[in-house]
Amino acid sequence: MRPLEDPYPSRIAPSPEWLPRLDPVVYGNAERSVGPLSPRQLADYERDGYLILPELLDGEEVAALRAELGRLSREPTITERESTITEPGSGTVRTIFEIHKVSPLFDSLARDPRLAGLVSQVLDDAIYVNQSRLNFKPGFRAKEFYWHSDFETWHVEDGMPRMRALSISVALTDNDSFNGPLMVIPGSHWWFLSCVGETPDDHYKKSLKKQEYGVPDDESLARMVEAGGIAVATGKAGSATVFDCNLMHGSNSNITPFPRSNAFFAYNAMSNAVVEPFGASRPRPAFLSERAPQPLKLAA
Amino acid sequence: MRPLEDPYPSRIAPSPEWLPRLDPVVYGNAERSVGPLSPRQLADYERDGYLILPELLDGEEVAALRAELGRLSREPTITERESTITEPGSGTVRTIFEIHKVSPLFDSLARDPRLAGLVSQVLDDAIYVNQSRLNFKPGFRAKEFYWHSDFETWHVEDGMPRMRALSISVALTDNDSFNGPLMVIPGSHWWFLSCVGETPDDHYKKSLKKQEYGVPDDESLARMVEAGGIAVATGKAGSATVFDCNLMHGSNSNITPFPRSNAFFAYNAMSNAVVEPFGASRPRPAFLSERAPQPLKLAA
Repeated sequence: MRPLEDPYPSRIAPSPEWLPRLDPVVYGNAERSVGPLSPRQLADYERDGYLILPELLDGEEVAALRAELGRLSREPTITERESTITEPGSGTVRTIFEIHKVSPLFDSLARDPRLAGLVSQVLDDAIYVNQSRLNFKPGFRAKEFYWHSDFETWHVEDGMPRMRALSISVALTDNDSFNGPLMVIPGSHWWFLSCVGETPDDHYKKSLKKQEYGVPDDESLARMVEAGGIAVATGKAGSATVFDCNLMHGSNSNITPFPRSNAFFAYNAMSNAVVEPFGASRPRPAFLSERAPQPLKLAA
Repeated sequence: MRPLEDPYPSRIAPSPEWLPRLDPVVYGNAERSVGPLSPRQLADYERDGYLILPELLDGEEVAALRAELGRLSREPTITERESTITEPGSGTVRTIFEIHKVSPLFDSLARDPRLAGLVSQVLDDAIYVNQSRLNFKPGFRAKEFYWHSDFETWHVEDGMPRMRALSISVALTDNDSFNGPLMVIPGSHWWFLSCVGETPDDHYKKSLKKQEYGVPDDESLARMVEAGGIAVATGKAGSATVFDCNLMHGSNSNITPFPRSNAFFAYNAMSNAVVEPFGASRPRPAFLSERAPQPLKLAA
């Protein structure tokens, strides 16, 4: 732990603090930028911290990924891994991690130029997949996932030094307003909100099921929403949401019969590879944060 | 308990059953009907089981009711009543019952011609308030409320004989898609869905916090939604939703900073006053279902 040199301390002070972001959101020279995003899209992403891509994948691609999702969720060598997380109570599969390692199809998706090319354009560096997962938000009884900044966790618990990372969530089912869609607070990525409380050892085992530490305080959330509002990432299967590592996001419960599944890839710049955790005695397992990064090769 | 003569048995059979509704939705002769609803609105209500009234109350009325809501939620003689329900964990006030008895302002609202006149028009009988309450769905940590038909509970646990009742929920805060709005399944009121399992004694003490008995099964809910979809009752403060006693409804959690409060009045026809419960050894307390109904007098 190196609090003295840490520009983004969290879970140390007795009260929350708003610290200015010291890192760019869009790296490199936007005017000479090469990639799938237009200058307008880059500017929107920089300002808001997220971007919705309504039709990233076509119907055939979605069908193939959903078939793969079904296969993985029934495959014992997958469901019995420590990196597969089940719903408290029912035992239903909720998250499968490392999908770019266990599935050639999801590996291709992670390296697809529409995703990886976009990431290179924004981060302006060689990139790697720091975390990948399939989220299953089943119908009827899926619980909420409380507001959080991924970077806060990645920094404190995994040792990600700076904000030069982003995530892409690809919808494999329709995301309607009523089945627990991703909600984001536009503009919240411009501040690092330090959280109160310390991180217990092996916190991740609990936190994947229910967030208890690294939780933003009510007053700060209210102020962020007052400034930026709430945007709901609704869209058809095949749409995607790109969002900065420090954007505040969460989702409500889902009592509707409509499940919500998405593939999630968190990309990091090679120059920003994880080091020792900034607020925990040892890093979380590699399925949550890659400890031996290799530069990603784009799929043909 | 009188299962033999009961057209709407529930919590008895080992598997759920869809029983046809034997009662009208709109009573009396629609063509000669007198009241605030147009023939078109009556027809929509009959078909869908609900109706949204976008601007039932004006801004001044809403402000007065919100002030009264604030007063009631801080008044110890109110918060200490058995009929005031608190959130599991936090102790925050979640529901205050009998608002038409403890507050002159909410009593006037219950008897307002825009509400009570509408109810008389639909039920074509003398009417009374069977239950009234203020719901507080606080921001940040409000849990979901699972799908249910009010009539199923009112029949089994309170002894309401037939479907000649309806509810009006008046929004005292804005209902957005993301802060846990009321969701309904249009057309679901045409069937009585019997639930499995028996009712334990004093079930109401638990069920007001978390629904465990009288819960519709997944397959039936999925079929109902396939047929009717899901309608989300969003609207500004001052809007109202009128819905049939047998309409399937529920709400998701609310992690946003925006609280959601509404005043709720369940009206019943005098000719349909509650008798002995159809599936419980004794009725729930009178704050949940009026045991000594008097015909409502409309406010001037």
